[in-house]
Amino acid sequence: MGGDFGPVVTVPASLQALSLYPKLRLLLVGNPDAILPILAASKSIGLLDRLTVIPAKSVISGDVRPAQAIRVSKDTSMRVALELIKSGRAHACVSAGNTGALMGLSKLVLKSVHGIERPALTTLLPHQKQGKTVILDLGANISCDGAMLVQFAIMGSVLSQQILGVSNPRVALLNIGSEETKGLDNIRHASRILHTISSIHYVGYVEANDLLMGKTDVLVCDGFIGNITLKTMEGVIRVILSTLQSSGKKNKLNWFMQIINFWIRKYLFKQFNQFNPDWYNGAHLVGLRSTVIKSHGAANQHAFIAAITQAMHAVEREVPEKISHQLSAVLSKNNH
Amino acid sequence: MGGDFGPVVTVPASLQALSLYPKLRLLLVGNPDAILPILAASKSIGLLDRLTVIPAKSVISGDVRPAQAIRVSKDTSMRVALELIKSGRAHACVSAGNTGALMGLSKLVLKSVHGIERPALTTLLPHQKQGKTVILDLGANISCDGAMLVQFAIMGSVLSQQILGVSNPRVALLNIGSEETKGLDNIRHASRILHTISSIHYVGYVEANDLLMGKTDVLVCDGFIGNITLKTMEGVIRVILSTLQSSGKKNKLNWFMQIINFWIRKYLFKQFNQFNPDWYNGAHLVGLRSTVIKSHGAANQHAFIAAITQAMHAVEREVPEKISHQLSAVLSKNNH
Repeated sequence: MGGDFGPVVTVPASLQALSLYPKLRLLLVGNPDAILPILAASKSIGLLDRLTVIPAKSVISGDVRPAQAIRVSKDTSMRVALELIKSGRAHACVSAGNTGALMGLSKLVLKSVHGIERPALTTLLPHQKQGKTVILDLGANISCDGAMLVQFAIMGSVLSQQILGVSNPRVALLNIGSEETKGLDNIRHASRILHTISSIHYVGYVEANDLLMGKTDVLVCDGFIGNITLKTMEGVIRVILSTLQSSGKKNKLNWFMQIINFWIRKYLFKQFNQFNPDWYNGAHLVGLRSTVIKSHGAANQHAFIAAITQAMHAVEREVPEKISHQLSAVLSKNNH
Repeated sequence: MGGDFGPVVTVPASLQALSLYPKLRLLLVGNPDAILPILAASKSIGLLDRLTVIPAKSVISGDVRPAQAIRVSKDTSMRVALELIKSGRAHACVSAGNTGALMGLSKLVLKSVHGIERPALTTLLPHQKQGKTVILDLGANISCDGAMLVQFAIMGSVLSQQILGVSNPRVALLNIGSEETKGLDNIRHASRILHTISSIHYVGYVEANDLLMGKTDVLVCDGFIGNITLKTMEGVIRVILSTLQSSGKKNKLNWFMQIINFWIRKYLFKQFNQFNPDWYNGAHLVGLRSTVIKSHGAANQHAFIAAITQAMHAVEREVPEKISHQLSAVLSKNNH
């Protein structure tokens, strides 16, 4: 029900995901009056036996404060969806709704992994060297102290190993300079601690202009900074991609040149499209005992399918279990 | 002397700026042993009568804490340069050096405009609708309270009017959501105050993905966020531009296709290049009684010329005087 568009995007995306993944089963939680007409209008009858509509009376709106949303969350689609995981009916939850509420409710209903104060939102950002950077937090915790940043670093390091197969992943803190004296107190504090953790390959500060350069495997920041950074990147990429698609039309070219123009643009579009935010939509809420994926509120159908795909992969690869296991190893070592 | 490259970049840039602008005169402050050989090696003898080398014994390094740098700033190139403005020998100062030290020393030597607690770094960011957005702070003040953000909003509004000729400029706060409840306390506090200032056309929160969309004429944030945002954007644009320049070489094309490929890439490069950070290098330190321009530390020759050009224009258009004048009008109105 959540996000900027609600069922108009999420229901068709769900149907398309079902047709892409034969083993996938989906529970659509929300207002049947909004969901059923879209299902009825679609011609995907063969897919409906792997889809169940779970009614929920209300929806947590995007602009309500998380604390307030959680207090009156009974019977909301988000709460019902998370309870489905708790009762064992679902393996994962995907939502495009209120980030703060999703974070708070997930922690309340599903509990966080032992040793983790606050779960974090993370995504896998493609970089120029053909790999991916785990970046966290992206908005679950808008202000963080040094200890929280250290926990994010540990979780990011485990994610990089477990999901991307990077051995001994490099971990960096996002900062406004590379010198130790630069930045905010919480960042400098986290840096001092990370230098002392032998199981983390801490490489120091990385500046935002190196975001796509592949200088680190894990990039740690507070949720406010992470959200701003990711959205800045997305905004710039979208401007570039739309310029690439539209600007050719203005040129008066003969048919031959038009074909070549189209061909080169298509080639460039494909090259830049690796950074298209739609491809990596879906942020893992890491640090929980189950898989919860937050989709961008403005996600289109294509992007929402990417979020469903991420949830599926996380369940198949047992990501929460592996994180929990590795974390307790790292944390117990550092408590000695 | 400052920045990542020092005189190797700044001296040739200075000579090129002199040849571009016949009315420009430059005082190069620093170590003559580093500056004179580069001057001697250049073949710009005709320009040297508009250039004076002012010796300074030492340099403030990039990684020293501002407070410490200021205490021992006597005879440093930065201090000497700022004193040249104070004594009336120079109209403006351009530096690629330590941002915090430049901010602190500028305030100490040149004083801030009446009513301004802390000057801010600002630049004019090109946007998709052919205009420019004044964005501040970019790193002079890494943490700010609500009142400081309001002062930045007022300064930004004046800058947009005075430099860009925008009447009744729209002013927004950078935040992670558009709803009033979103974001950090200082941002929400500034928002409440801005709603009450009638002379500011406050339009609310703008998210980072709309940075290049032209949704606002002035975008206000604290210096840490501003620095991260600008550098993220720069990093992405540089990746795109370098891909555009290099990727064509990998294709095996015949000579005819190569020419067309080159032609289309050149066209696209020109389109995207409007967002190339080199073009708008040079951040104004606004809120001071004189013009001080901070160049990016990593600026190349081309970018450093852009910073010199900005200083020249600010002096010609009497920007500090106009800001001071408008500010006192706005501030006195709001004290009633």
